[in-house]
Amino acid sequence: MGLQGGAGPEEVWPIEGVIELTFPDEETARVVYKSVLYEHKTVPYRRSRIDFLLDGRKIVIRFLAKDNSALRGTLNSYLRWIKVAMDSFEL
Amino acid sequence: MGLQGGAGPEEVWPIEGVIELTFPDEETARVVYKSVLYEHKTVPYRRSRIDFLLDGRKIVIRFLAKDNSALRGTLNSYLRWIKVAMDSFEL
Repeated sequence: MGLQGGAGPEEVWPIEGVIELTFPDEETARVVYKSVLYEHKTVPYRRSRIDFLLDGRKIVIRFLAKDNSALRGTLNSYLRWIKVAMDSFEL
Repeated sequence: MGLQGGAGPEEVWPIEGVIELTFPDEETARVVYKSVLYEHKTVPYRRSRIDFLLDGRKIVIRFLAKDNSALRGTLNSYLRWIKVAMDSFEL
């Protein structure tokens, strides 16, 4: 509970995961990706480590989280940004 | 388990994706999975189709969504259930 300061000098990231979202075409994926990339670059996360990638029609989010709260908070942020980006297409 | 939610022959599911969460051990994955499986089985989704699987230390959620709102709503539900299940471990 409350792993605000981490477990110690050697940090532990017990939960790892990946989200892959496949869009109808590369252009859609690319525009959504670029929009979310801005958020990805500007928001620092201390309790999750995130790789955010574009692979053709796929957006790939790879992550390591210290705990479940960090996991959910991080994924919610990315999903929200993706939704906002997609809303502009009315996908 | 099977895909939840009905789809008519004319329906389009433009967004597909997968979430894989890897836990520290199989037992943790199994207990979280079983807890979320109950929700998965009891909640019908009409705007998303979901496959919810356990694979060793991994929980795998495969999904098809009609639109971004359906996508985000569905993923939020699964992430919330997973968080609740994980809170019981204080993971």
